[in-house]
Amino acid sequence: MVYLAEFIGTAILTLLGCGVVAGVTLAKSKANAAGWIVVTFGWGMAVAMAVYVVGATSGAHINPAVTLGLASIGDFGWAQVPGYIAAQVAGGFTGAVLVYLAYFAHWKITDDPDGKLGVFGTAPGVRNPIANLATEIIGTAMLLLGILGIGANEGSVSVENGAQLTDFFSNGIAPLLTGLLVFAIGLSLGGPTGYAINPARDLGPRIAHALLPIPGKGGSDWGYSWIPIVGPVIGGVIGAWIWYLTGFGA
Amino acid sequence: MVYLAEFIGTAILTLLGCGVVAGVTLAKSKANAAGWIVVTFGWGMAVAMAVYVVGATSGAHINPAVTLGLASIGDFGWAQVPGYIAAQVAGGFTGAVLVYLAYFAHWKITDDPDGKLGVFGTAPGVRNPIANLATEIIGTAMLLLGILGIGANEGSVSVENGAQLTDFFSNGIAPLLTGLLVFAIGLSLGGPTGYAINPARDLGPRIAHALLPIPGKGGSDWGYSWIPIVGPVIGGVIGAWIWYLTGFGA
Amino acid sequence: MVYLAEFIGTAILTLLGCGVVAGVTLAKSKANAAGWIVVTFGWGMAVAMAVYVVGATSGAHINPAVTLGLASIGDFGWAQVPGYIAAQVAGGFTGAVLVYLAYFAHWKITDDPDGKLGVFGTAPGVRNPIANLATEIIGTAMLLLGILGIGANEGSVSVENGAQLTDFFSNGIAPLLTGLLVFAIGLSLGGPTGYAINPARDLGPRIAHALLPIPGKGGSDWGYSWIPIVGPVIGGVIGAWIWYLTGFGA
Amino acid sequence: MVYLAEFIGTAILTLLGCGVVAGVTLAKSKANAAGWIVVTFGWGMAVAMAVYVVGATSGAHINPAVTLGLASIGDFGWAQVPGYIAAQVAGGFTGAVLVYLAYFAHWKITDDPDGKLGVFGTAPGVRNPIANLATEIIGTAMLLLGILGIGANEGSVSVENGAQLTDFFSNGIAPLLTGLLVFAIGLSLGGPTGYAINPARDLGPRIAHALLPIPGKGGSDWGYSWIPIVGPVIGGVIGAWIWYLTGFGA
Repeated sequence: MVYLAEFIGTAILTLLGCGVVAGVTLAKSKANAAGWIVVTFGWGMAVAMAVYVVGATSGAHINPAVTLGLASIGDFGWAQVPGYIAAQVAGGFTGAVLVYLAYFAHWKITDDPDGKLGVFGTAPGVRNPIANLATEIIGTAMLLLGILGIGANEGSVSVENGAQLTDFFSNGIAPLLTGLLVFAIGLSLGGPTGYAINPARDLGPRIAHALLPIPGKGGSDWGYSWIPIVGPVIGGVIGAWIWYLTGFGA
Repeated sequence: MVYLAEFIGTAILTLLGCGVVAGVTLAKSKANAAGWIVVTFGWGMAVAMAVYVVGATSGAHINPAVTLGLASIGDFGWAQVPGYIAAQVAGGFTGAVLVYLAYFAHWKITDDPDGKLGVFGTAPGVRNPIANLATEIIGTAMLLLGILGIGANEGSVSVENGAQLTDFFSNGIAPLLTGLLVFAIGLSLGGPTGYAINPARDLGPRIAHALLPIPGKGGSDWGYSWIPIVGPVIGGVIGAWIWYLTGFGA
Repeated sequence: MVYLAEFIGTAILTLLGCGVVAGVTLAKSKANAAGWIVVTFGWGMAVAMAVYVVGATSGAHINPAVTLGLASIGDFGWAQVPGYIAAQVAGGFTGAVLVYLAYFAHWKITDDPDGKLGVFGTAPGVRNPIANLATEIIGTAMLLLGILGIGANEGSVSVENGAQLTDFFSNGIAPLLTGLLVFAIGLSLGGPTGYAINPARDLGPRIAHALLPIPGKGGSDWGYSWIPIVGPVIGGVIGAWIWYLTGFGA
Repeated sequence: MVYLAEFIGTAILTLLGCGVVAGVTLAKSKANAAGWIVVTFGWGMAVAMAVYVVGATSGAHINPAVTLGLASIGDFGWAQVPGYIAAQVAGGFTGAVLVYLAYFAHWKITDDPDGKLGVFGTAPGVRNPIANLATEIIGTAMLLLGILGIGANEGSVSVENGAQLTDFFSNGIAPLLTGLLVFAIGLSLGGPTGYAINPARDLGPRIAHALLPIPGKGGSDWGYSWIPIVGPVIGGVIGAWIWYLTGFGA
């Protein structure tokens, strides 16, 4: 059940997230060239809605960097980590397939192969592995710090007011705040690499790009694909440990 | 009383929703060419405000796809379905008439007949019935899944904290979240067809376009009009059943 | 005390509201030509922040159309109406003077006299008194309907959960929702007239425009000034009576 | 512990805040030229996220003007003022260093030295010390008035509902509202000077600009640097005293 929730949650994430990139990139889309505010708000609301749908079931990690970061400080059991990650990558793939279908008539009338790939996987503005890795590490550390900050506020409520208010709150505004956190990271730290900050969000759709019969597509840029996996995992653990060592959540 | 609420709620939806399209489309409007972020935020806030005004009375479906989707999983009684849908279509028509009046001085100075029609009904970027239908199905399935996710969170609160907190919550932030859900769908899946995701939002205003004495108007494109009816109904049922079968709301 | 609150609340409204128009209009402003999303979000957040500062003291009408609309259905006592309106107009004037100071170095380097007037008072895209009046009536009717919808949701909470939760809620998210309502009206119905929907927001700053030593200013367009007074008053009463007659708040 | 929280909170503020300016300014950033809505939303969400992470520990002043304004009306003890301010400036510096790293590959391909400085420190559109000072004073007075308005609403809840609801609320939506307040000030009053409204946000990053080996950088404009220190301090005290003297929070 939790794995199904992670699968569907991550599928919603990439359906709406890769969907907004398709909207601003593909020819004759009504959102064509709509700009960075549309891209970043689209990804932010994608996160929020995914968390509203599956948060009560699985906690809505929908991101291996979140799963591993939380596990690294003891906030999540290692036994479920492999299943969570597998479900997230499969969900990321599935959401991207739905984007392919939702924009079905637009692939063959769009010329740019790089733009088509950009709907699925991230790519850096300047190709520089160390710098790109640093960007993804900093962005994902901020993601974990923010998630734990939002969550700890719920925690501190729990202590004082009893568990039911925590649940009330967690079901109320925390998913929206998580979406706004991703909106914030996109606005501020998304410029250099397109902010994967989530291995499943990049790998799943990249596999979809490789497998789908997209007219006029180019290569899937597998040479870059390790950066949006390794960077977010390192950053997620760093962010979680900053939180843990400062004791802000205690 | 509930039918009056659905009528007024859907009228608010199309007053503010078709209004934002008029604002960005019509000549000498201060919002002229303001872009996709304005269109999508306008429709999102239109939904939110409609739900704040009538949500406590009728539940604010304001969309036949919502009414039918909820009925299909037993969350809404079939007896009220015809009345709800009739009120929604009549409300969608009435809101569009108010948009005609609010932008009264701008119709005759605007040249583009397609732009004028676009204020009322949706039209695809690429005309391809199967692809357009798929887009509307995917978008509306996401709509129902999101609505039920937001609503189920309220439900799970109810179980633990007592009914009054559910009501408190439902009256507080859930209408805003529903508006942000429509904002998210517009940003990410609106590009191909202009996201009707609601038969009453398209049919009611399209009838208004056909009947109103709009200077320089063209045809009402009835050949396309079945897609924003059939697609949302299918998608709404699919989304509701995904929710029902996964058991996330249980 | 309530009059001081209305004065300061309306001053905040026009400081931030006229301020955003100054930002997008005046030469060498960093917000120059930033577009309709900036203007409408600026006015929306102006309302929200004004209500957070003075809402607990006076209810933060900050708008004669709100004061008169509420009084017309018995939700506000007529005895305080004259004082509220006088304080609102004086506050609207004062906020506009602060905008003049905040943008002090930018008036003399901006050429366009119409743009300078537009920082203070509204002007229609197409000059047509009946149509302009209709636009202001429809927009302000929506404003009152929305305010009463947001407020009635609080009311229904009060009945079930006890008065303290109403206060909690009213102090929490209702001011933000009111700001988002004005954001919505601006996005969707602001195109034709620049959405005064508030006599004090237009008259107060217009007086400031007439009196302040603004370099290179033109006339204050007093010929138009009755429309953003009469239209909002009529619309406010209509919106309040729609609410009252439908009984949605009962 | 509170000093560490102020340090990390202000580092998050400038990481995300200076980060969004880097995104819209630097060459080959995906956010290049994304406009004022992106800059202002980026800074607003930067504030919100910083407050979520450290608000429960230190109150998240993250701004010497807030610390001094609150101390001037007795809402914060003078003994902690020097430590708070030192931590804030050090945090502002550290966040800017992280922005330098996150955008590492983009400095040497960007030509404009003024643009590079603008990522770190503020600069006026029109250089006029008195006018620039007035803008910063007005903006920061609005900041303190808004913060106290949001906070007093929490306070009035506390009185009626018991302390636990205050904490619940303060941990829930108040940080987001504080971010939206800064968003509002940026939209409306940011045009003339780029709205420092915070000495640590300007001084810390300006020191980083002076010390970091940024390719092709120009001077750090120390001649202007006193204005975003003196203006916010004066404005913060004025805003706090307006609140105190009106008695809105009593």
